[in-house]
Amino acid sequence: MALLIKNGLIVEHDGRRKADIYCENETVTRIGENLDAPAGTKVIDAGDKYVFPGFIDPHVHIHLPFMGTFAKDNHDTGSKAALMGGTTMFIEMCCPNRGMDMLEGYEEWKSLAAGKASCDYAFHMAVAKWEDKTADQLDKVLADGTTSFKIFLAYKDFFGVYDDELFNVLTYAGKHGVTVAAHTENADLVSLMQQRLLAEGKTGSEWHEPSRPDFVEAAGVNHFATFLKLTGARGYVVHLSNAKALEAAITARKQGVQLGVEAVIPHLILDKSYAERPNFEGAKYVMSPPLRTTADRQALWSGLKSGLVDTVATDHAPFDFVEQKTMGKDDFTKIPNGIPAIEDRINLLYTYGVSRGDLSLERFVEVGSTNAAKWFGLYPQKGALRVGSDADIVVYDPKAKGTFSVKTQSMNIDYNGFEGMDRDGKPDVVTVRGNVQVENGEFVGKTGIGSFVTRSLAK
Amino acid sequence: MALLIKNGLIVEHDGRRKADIYCENETVTRIGENLDAPAGTKVIDAGDKYVFPGFIDPHVHIHLPFMGTFAKDNHDTGSKAALMGGTTMFIEMCCPNRGMDMLEGYEEWKSLAAGKASCDYAFHMAVAKWEDKTADQLDKVLADGTTSFKIFLAYKDFFGVYDDELFNVLTYAGKHGVTVAAHTENADLVSLMQQRLLAEGKTGSEWHEPSRPDFVEAAGVNHFATFLKLTGARGYVVHLSNAKALEAAITARKQGVQLGVEAVIPHLILDKSYAERPNFEGAKYVMSPPLRTTADRQALWSGLKSGLVDTVATDHAPFDFVEQKTMGKDDFTKIPNGIPAIEDRINLLYTYGVSRGDLSLERFVEVGSTNAAKWFGLYPQKGALRVGSDADIVVYDPKAKGTFSVKTQSMNIDYNGFEGMDRDGKPDVVTVRGNVQVENGEFVGKTGIGSFVTRSLAK
Amino acid sequence: MALLIKNGLIVEHDGRRKADIYCENETVTRIGENLDAPAGTKVIDAGDKYVFPGFIDPHVHIHLPFMGTFAKDNHDTGSKAALMGGTTMFIEMCCPNRGMDMLEGYEEWKSLAAGKASCDYAFHMAVAKWEDKTADQLDKVLADGTTSFKIFLAYKDFFGVYDDELFNVLTYAGKHGVTVAAHTENADLVSLMQQRLLAEGKTGSEWHEPSRPDFVEAAGVNHFATFLKLTGARGYVVHLSNAKALEAAITARKQGVQLGVEAVIPHLILDKSYAERPNFEGAKYVMSPPLRTTADRQALWSGLKSGLVDTVATDHAPFDFVEQKTMGKDDFTKIPNGIPAIEDRINLLYTYGVSRGDLSLERFVEVGSTNAAKWFGLYPQKGALRVGSDADIVVYDPKAKGTFSVKTQSMNIDYNGFEGMDRDGKPDVVTVRGNVQVENGEFVGKTGIGSFVTRSLAK
Amino acid sequence: MALLIKNGLIVEHDGRRKADIYCENETVTRIGENLDAPAGTKVIDAGDKYVFPGFIDPHVHIHLPFMGTFAKDNHDTGSKAALMGGTTMFIEMCCPNRGMDMLEGYEEWKSLAAGKASCDYAFHMAVAKWEDKTADQLDKVLADGTTSFKIFLAYKDFFGVYDDELFNVLTYAGKHGVTVAAHTENADLVSLMQQRLLAEGKTGSEWHEPSRPDFVEAAGVNHFATFLKLTGARGYVVHLSNAKALEAAITARKQGVQLGVEAVIPHLILDKSYAERPNFEGAKYVMSPPLRTTADRQALWSGLKSGLVDTVATDHAPFDFVEQKTMGKDDFTKIPNGIPAIEDRINLLYTYGVSRGDLSLERFVEVGSTNAAKWFGLYPQKGALRVGSDADIVVYDPKAKGTFSVKTQSMNIDYNGFEGMDRDGKPDVVTVRGNVQVENGEFVGKTGIGSFVTRSLAK
Repeated sequence: MALLIKNGLIVEHDGRRKADIYCENETVTRIGENLDAPAGTKVIDAGDKYVFPGFIDPHVHIHLPFMGTFAKDNHDTGSKAALMGGTTMFIEMCCPNRGMDMLEGYEEWKSLAAGKASCDYAFHMAVAKWEDKTADQLDKVLADGTTSFKIFLAYKDFFGVYDDELFNVLTYAGKHGVTVAAHTENADLVSLMQQRLLAEGKTGSEWHEPSRPDFVEAAGVNHFATFLKLTGARGYVVHLSNAKALEAAITARKQGVQLGVEAVIPHLILDKSYAERPNFEGAKYVMSPPLRTTADRQALWSGLKSGLVDTVATDHAPFDFVEQKTMGKDDFTKIPNGIPAIEDRINLLYTYGVSRGDLSLERFVEVGSTNAAKWFGLYPQKGALRVGSDADIVVYDPKAKGTFSVKTQSMNIDYNGFEGMDRDGKPDVVTVRGNVQVENGEFVGKTGIGSFVTRSLAK
Repeated sequence: MALLIKNGLIVEHDGRRKADIYCENETVTRIGENLDAPAGTKVIDAGDKYVFPGFIDPHVHIHLPFMGTFAKDNHDTGSKAALMGGTTMFIEMCCPNRGMDMLEGYEEWKSLAAGKASCDYAFHMAVAKWEDKTADQLDKVLADGTTSFKIFLAYKDFFGVYDDELFNVLTYAGKHGVTVAAHTENADLVSLMQQRLLAEGKTGSEWHEPSRPDFVEAAGVNHFATFLKLTGARGYVVHLSNAKALEAAITARKQGVQLGVEAVIPHLILDKSYAERPNFEGAKYVMSPPLRTTADRQALWSGLKSGLVDTVATDHAPFDFVEQKTMGKDDFTKIPNGIPAIEDRINLLYTYGVSRGDLSLERFVEVGSTNAAKWFGLYPQKGALRVGSDADIVVYDPKAKGTFSVKTQSMNIDYNGFEGMDRDGKPDVVTVRGNVQVENGEFVGKTGIGSFVTRSLAK
Repeated sequence: MALLIKNGLIVEHDGRRKADIYCENETVTRIGENLDAPAGTKVIDAGDKYVFPGFIDPHVHIHLPFMGTFAKDNHDTGSKAALMGGTTMFIEMCCPNRGMDMLEGYEEWKSLAAGKASCDYAFHMAVAKWEDKTADQLDKVLADGTTSFKIFLAYKDFFGVYDDELFNVLTYAGKHGVTVAAHTENADLVSLMQQRLLAEGKTGSEWHEPSRPDFVEAAGVNHFATFLKLTGARGYVVHLSNAKALEAAITARKQGVQLGVEAVIPHLILDKSYAERPNFEGAKYVMSPPLRTTADRQALWSGLKSGLVDTVATDHAPFDFVEQKTMGKDDFTKIPNGIPAIEDRINLLYTYGVSRGDLSLERFVEVGSTNAAKWFGLYPQKGALRVGSDADIVVYDPKAKGTFSVKTQSMNIDYNGFEGMDRDGKPDVVTVRGNVQVENGEFVGKTGIGSFVTRSLAK
Repeated sequence: MALLIKNGLIVEHDGRRKADIYCENETVTRIGENLDAPAGTKVIDAGDKYVFPGFIDPHVHIHLPFMGTFAKDNHDTGSKAALMGGTTMFIEMCCPNRGMDMLEGYEEWKSLAAGKASCDYAFHMAVAKWEDKTADQLDKVLADGTTSFKIFLAYKDFFGVYDDELFNVLTYAGKHGVTVAAHTENADLVSLMQQRLLAEGKTGSEWHEPSRPDFVEAAGVNHFATFLKLTGARGYVVHLSNAKALEAAITARKQGVQLGVEAVIPHLILDKSYAERPNFEGAKYVMSPPLRTTADRQALWSGLKSGLVDTVATDHAPFDFVEQKTMGKDDFTKIPNGIPAIEDRINLLYTYGVSRGDLSLERFVEVGSTNAAKWFGLYPQKGALRVGSDADIVVYDPKAKGTFSVKTQSMNIDYNGFEGMDRDGKPDVVTVRGNVQVENGEFVGKTGIGSFVTRSLAK
């Protein structure tokens, strides 16, 4: 069915205009003033509202076996929550661990998503080891349209790679033009610090941050960047959380390293005092890297404004407070990590970045959608509203005030990390390739129509 | 007349595709494979060649009264030289000095260009003082579509502004969303250093660089950025020449300042040893800021690659060696400043950045065209090849090897700063809004068809 | 009268030893174990206590006409308060303003101190302008043993110098090996910000900090350092208050600039929330540069530990809360600046740096005494306890716990900025050139015996 | 025999004076004007000459089994060469490898030096692994007066430690107040780069530098500093060679890490063009870290001047050109590393730092002697000329011009890395604890009188 969205203010990363937008066969086919609608066209009046390209979350976990349990969302619930919040595509971390066959893992992740996701999706292929067969396997993954990798310096012997393996992965990536995303915390140091703190009887959630301090994360960025420079690969630091780590990324760029920086919404909105809340309440706010200081938050916002931070993601990883976070009641190292936000990311970014902050609407679109598309080979199919782009559209109502709360959320989890905070706007209509999945703020669409998106190599 | 360019590889800043491109009524109207051409269409076969959006030089001087003489190019010769080198639009510094009425200066510059320029053009409005009437005058300039300003910390009492004036200009700019370009060298210090060196008998061209060292320029960037942060204005550092100054710009960005960085082609290609050449030969290479060290050149290239440097311009300012540069024979402070390059910028950037360097074709387009368009309110009218964009097109032949030389140049000046250096490619066809101005590397177009381009405020 | 201090732990900046110390004729003459004491020697048992070289405060104001009033301490009360806190010498800012003759000012300041001060003293000569006669006058000041200057970028047209004057002062200093101390806030910017805030109705003490933000101070350090590099002079930044300014100082050092960094005790102990206290209470905490953030405090402490910060001073400037601070009741720009601490500096540094911090005793002595002596041409006459050093000695009792309070202080002022904070130690005995001025924590000495100390040029 | 040195200008790190100096029983016993000499005193007239405290080289190799061969100097030849150049004490790297028992290695190194060295000496204890017994062994080493350790991030599985071992060494060091010196190049990366270069047929000495680039060394400094910060240990980076590594060290200091920086004289005087010399001549200039760029050299000199670099050492490691360096004729990774300079360090530092540079005499003494003494628990026994200091004295003749050459050197090696360079001064007399070992520039002393010096923990 054709779709016409009228009278809205279309905002892309590079400009805005008052215009109508017409979609057929999953794509945008016309943009202009006073477009006519053939009979049978669904017409949406976006008067007084913004019309954005669908937002992209470049860092989520859906299928996530972790510490003997599983993250609570599946591709059905997770993708619907994403859509409710204006996110029309996510890139999931496909994370077979070191003990698994990488290609089997890749197929498993793909099969779990297929037919279940209601928004579009793709994967970052985690490489957790380097074996003789790895290059061949990566050739297959690339050929399948999965054109970015993920490596961990953290989680040694589980997800993490050794230095010689890292060199091999990046040499491969450099040769093929693949962007490699990295979790940069040093595994050994975090483990040693955890042991020391536990031995001192420091077991509460407030000790999670001190067990993985800002400068350890920064040292990891530095380490990763050193390998990038030697191999010529293009890198991307996920969930960079603090000023020192940002400084390390900038230092690399000064030396010519192409290095993207991703902030996640919890690090932008919350600080470490949340994880220090008493009565185990702090456990809700345990993620890695941990929440940091107010000054770190400000550094991330400054970077978003001036262009030093490229994207805003979530690192969505939902674990219930009552039954799962409590695994770490007596030992913070056993608290499953995550502050879920797949549904709230865009509303938080709009509220605290645009409405009450100093990001322009264009920059908001750029960091919430366009840059992820550019970094990961999706632009201008995604991340833009041009003739020929996928008809992933968000009609956003800047007058829909409310609050963030577990009571109203779609995410399958028993708390909300932003409970009670003000919200200054909300998606009214959300489409995925022309399918109206959300309307009037309700899910009204078709379950499972999300497609696996094959991607090109980024420019 | 309609125009069809067939079989080329169209390269924009965000991707490339093999496609035909069709233009009518000054704009691009169709892009696709195997486009058909109505009778009367001029057809150009770009097989094996690149098709780029027209390049933009965001920093040139054409009408330039300076030190009692005038730069040699006028809008006729300058614009033709630009076109020969693939530049289809420039932004000229409109520089009435402190003794002139700003608005009268603006009209004078406009009238000199009108009907003379063969490529499109716009102006940065230099603000050399702040008077009671200045705000009203700037309102008029903005209303006329000139949406960027220029300020000088250098050239005190001529072009330069005092700190309280600077605060007023930037407060105005912050309020209206105007980007302010700045020449950041500290006037007092340069003047004091010049006096000291001359007093010591150091009069040759090799003393020009020591009279305005890298850290003085960096201090100026820092000074400018401090005012930007206080006023919320958006800034742009022109002809940033060295690693310390780049560091200062980055420091500002870390604090959330929106600050563009422009490199000019002489600083990327040449180093200060050129200005130290004996027999006054060094005078050809005197510009401000001066040529720097090899390490500084590398820092600029690294920044171009990783995204810390935004644009490549020229600061074109042509003064003849024999009759004009010699004014400073016995006193380097009297050498007219400039290393002209309006014609050679893109060929140098292609040769040493792409062909022999590590810039991608997309990044080449971005820093040579797109970013200037975005920073200065021209995108996607200019800087892109989308349906609706101006039909400013460069068909570029990467096999047209040659050398840079005064013998073959179109610039109206008696030397070439890059004499004898290798060239790895050359524009074959250059169009301005569909008018074929250059073909087979010759100017074949219409003189004086260049338009003054009214600009929006940048995003 | 000879003096023998027995059984203490002598701590200098470069080591510690258990030994006796014997003094005659104003100087230390013997250090060793089990020294014998001739009849008539005054013997002090320092068992279980520390024996430190007398502490030096390199930055105080005593005679301070400011904003139409005068700071409350005179050389009698100020020096006694210093001694009570273990400070045996201070360097006063001799600040004739731009309207005064510099040399007459110098004589005035000297005459006010002579015969009144009970501890030793010297002056930094403020140079508030550059006239034809200035070089000759400075020759006389140097010849009189006053070998350091002070310049202000702040307080334009009162204390402040213009850029060409600054160049002249530093050229003179570079030639003569004089260290120049600088207050680096940019006068114009602060003034413009003050006007803007007042115009917006922001008149309370909480607006003092925003009127002179951290990056403005940092820009001033950068500006000062630029002039130092050009002139080869040796500089010293007084009361550096924040991380960005420290970064600017370090950047200068990386370029080979010899640049000392002074922190003052209020910036180390307090943060800007104090100046935001309601009911005008915040006015007690107004000084310039202002109190900053917790992160800034930590940056100063880190620098003290690792060697990037050289000295701890006070910028002592006492104005009564009730009668003087209230001048700014309706306008924060009229609040006399200062958080007096001449008496509390060493006890605060010991308590929060050594006892509850991670400074070693040696480093405590270094930043509280030795480095000031070295930077300002007093070492090893002062700042050390070697045979031949002045017998300025502090016997310090690390068990004398208490609190800081206006009720118990000797400073002539009606409040204490550190009211109620814990104190972990206290001077028990304080001598000036062998004269016991403080004993059992009471002033027991001779009023007015303090000497003007002639100084050499620093190494 | 008593010794009186008359009429010299005594220069210490903190000042200078014209005075006589008298020594008995190995120590300085009197300093003053016109000292009288008892009969039998040896009197040296130092008129017009400088009198310096004996210089200390904190980083040498004497017994050095490496790549299947041995460095050419032994404790006899090495110590005499040191003395000829004014170095009266060195600290040797005691480097048992990972396969050896650490304590047995320590005894071996001590026994090789005992009775052979003609100047004083001590050891840094290399810790190449962490075993159950290591803590006990280190207790013994500390008890023996060897109070500093050395670790390698380079030379994996030979000298290098793994991250968990590094954590253990530094935890031990932090607890005991031991300073840990580190060679910070990342072993894996260097090895991988070497393999890559060799596979590409890049086998010459000019590829040594690219195999271990500046940013790899910098990343190692960052890695080391991260561990220091977590453990609270005090660190010292040996032979820091470039601007990026210095930046990394400074970043650590900003975070409060106590981190010394050592430059070695080859990195100060030579650049990497030496290692690129044809006909295998470059092999003479192969050391690790490698010689760097001119800009890096300048950064080290700037740091020396402003205080960011603490010491100047040599990393003396002499391998003959003809018979040993040639092992790497076809493979640069097999060239024994080292540019010997134990004899030339002080003369080079004087010539290019003081005589033709801008270091003061005091700073020259500080970086050549005093700071090494302070960092490694020797001050003021060594590194100073105070009553009670060891009578290690250098009478230095600033008029003894000459050149550096293999023809005139005492080092046991067949080339001189500084061949033909100008020398502006030379030691005339050199004493070790009052023994005149060098006089009139000739070794005239007693072989083997050098003592193992037990050291305290640094302050």
